[in-house]
Amino acid sequence: MSETESETAPARVLCLGLAVQDYVFSLPEMPTTAEKFRASDMAVTGGGGAANAAVAVARLGGGALLATRLGADRIAEAIVADLEAEGVDCSHSVRYEGCTSSISAVLVDGAGERMVVNYRDAALPQSVDWLPDPAGLSLGAVSVDNRWPIGAAHLLGLARAAGLPGVLDGEAPMDSCGAAMLAASHVAFSRQGLTDWAGTDDIAAGLTAAAKLRNGGFVCVTDGADGIHFRHGATQGHVPAFRVRVVDTLGAGDVWHGAFALSLAEGHTATDAIRFASAVAALKCTEFGGRRGIPSRAQVETFLREHSS
Amino acid sequence: MSETESETAPARVLCLGLAVQDYVFSLPEMPTTAEKFRASDMAVTGGGGAANAAVAVARLGGGALLATRLGADRIAEAIVADLEAEGVDCSHSVRYEGCTSSISAVLVDGAGERMVVNYRDAALPQSVDWLPDPAGLSLGAVSVDNRWPIGAAHLLGLARAAGLPGVLDGEAPMDSCGAAMLAASHVAFSRQGLTDWAGTDDIAAGLTAAAKLRNGGFVCVTDGADGIHFRHGATQGHVPAFRVRVVDTLGAGDVWHGAFALSLAEGHTATDAIRFASAVAALKCTEFGGRRGIPSRAQVETFLREHSS
Repeated sequence: MSETESETAPARVLCLGLAVQDYVFSLPEMPTTAEKFRASDMAVTGGGGAANAAVAVARLGGGALLATRLGADRIAEAIVADLEAEGVDCSHSVRYEGCTSSISAVLVDGAGERMVVNYRDAALPQSVDWLPDPAGLSLGAVSVDNRWPIGAAHLLGLARAAGLPGVLDGEAPMDSCGAAMLAASHVAFSRQGLTDWAGTDDIAAGLTAAAKLRNGGFVCVTDGADGIHFRHGATQGHVPAFRVRVVDTLGAGDVWHGAFALSLAEGHTATDAIRFASAVAALKCTEFGGRRGIPSRAQVETFLREHSS
Repeated sequence: MSETESETAPARVLCLGLAVQDYVFSLPEMPTTAEKFRASDMAVTGGGGAANAAVAVARLGGGALLATRLGADRIAEAIVADLEAEGVDCSHSVRYEGCTSSISAVLVDGAGERMVVNYRDAALPQSVDWLPDPAGLSLGAVSVDNRWPIGAAHLLGLARAAGLPGVLDGEAPMDSCGAAMLAASHVAFSRQGLTDWAGTDDIAAGLTAAAKLRNGGFVCVTDGADGIHFRHGATQGHVPAFRVRVVDTLGAGDVWHGAFALSLAEGHTATDAIRFASAVAALKCTEFGGRRGIPSRAQVETFLREHSS
């Protein structure tokens, strides 16, 4: 491969974590009682943190690889078919006989806010033997959700050893993510994830505690319309969210993580990566149906030019 | 057919209304916020008012026929395959090209209470031409949910003309069920259905208004653990619910209606039919997974003997 080709080859990101079949229901208001409600719209779509991140990488022109644990069932077939149609390489995923693949019921209200009820099979084996070594995959970064803490810590450790950026999506179960929190080069919490981990909904206090545990390593929280707060060494900052007409926030955080990891893989600074990822996530929220709304690279670049002032 | 054979042939009930694919999630507590929740158990199962009623009729030894509108899609194939495995005759149902079959997300909490979010395709044609005439089907009764008011009113009218009992499940949309309310021989509201229809949660006032509209025709409300309140001409009464360990109330009302219609089809009085249906619904609630828990006739008879004091 010539140097020029090497420079223009797309950056590759390995995403580890959850791939899900989502049943997404749209309702005027979020139901809160044990009654019957009628949805105005419905979509059956792929979801899950790592899978959504991988689709974002692929739509944005990156090379996307997914490592996930599935059951050997029809749900897995649908999940993988959807991902392969998006250009995601699923050859590093595993299917276990006798296990059930993950599905979610998702309720999206008139303001675009979403409730996710996810089922994952607690009997999925914990073995990490099948996980690939990032060093051998010509990667630019790995991006990891925390739904399988043992796998997350293992892959982030390998990425660190290979000198690759490793992004951790800080979400539940946050009581068992200590190893992953230390191995990651970048930890990006959701608001709910930071609250769960820190035991307080004071964002500043939570970030300070996380930054201390990580000896000043990069840590941030994505707080929806309130934008991103981050800490990195002695630096702390805030990047506001882009203002868009929000239709559906489902998967916005996942997509943010995939875009953030891709931008790091392309050699951008964390601050530039935050801005890029925030544009991608904002555009995603303008369409109903979870990952359906993930934009192309061209759409993001146009959007960023329009919002460059 | 000899007279003896005719007497022992199972009573047949035609059920009209909704057939659904349910994705049922079990959680310790009912979620009420736009956050992420993890389910402890999950079942993919058939549901829908008329379909659940038909399965109850079949499990209880009756002849069950289902008239429902489906899309011409994979969901319909799964719905019909499940019903045929239960012995329900689906030959009087219709599948429309370009339409989507109905699916629901169902959340069941630790107390067995359920939230149902249902999607049905508003573009399903309203034509009633395909509906069979109950007079030609050797039926003992028809049982109708109100999710398709035009079809419900049409079939209940035909049943009345044929001199057959016609049971209406009084649920939404109650603003457009006037014709069905008058055509039915028996109207059984859910608590939510009666409240919606009467515009008050005062059960006595709601029943009085419904009985007046129906000129004294049978009307009742099924109120979960509080049992059944009914009015019939000058008579009013209350049948207490059976005490069981409730695991999952999903479909309990539907199953009650199917069992009630079957008992009427077998020639029992409304009071006896209430007691029978209440036993069936109570047993159903003791198992997780919606219609999964519908008992056999033998189980119901044993249960009724044990609770005969």
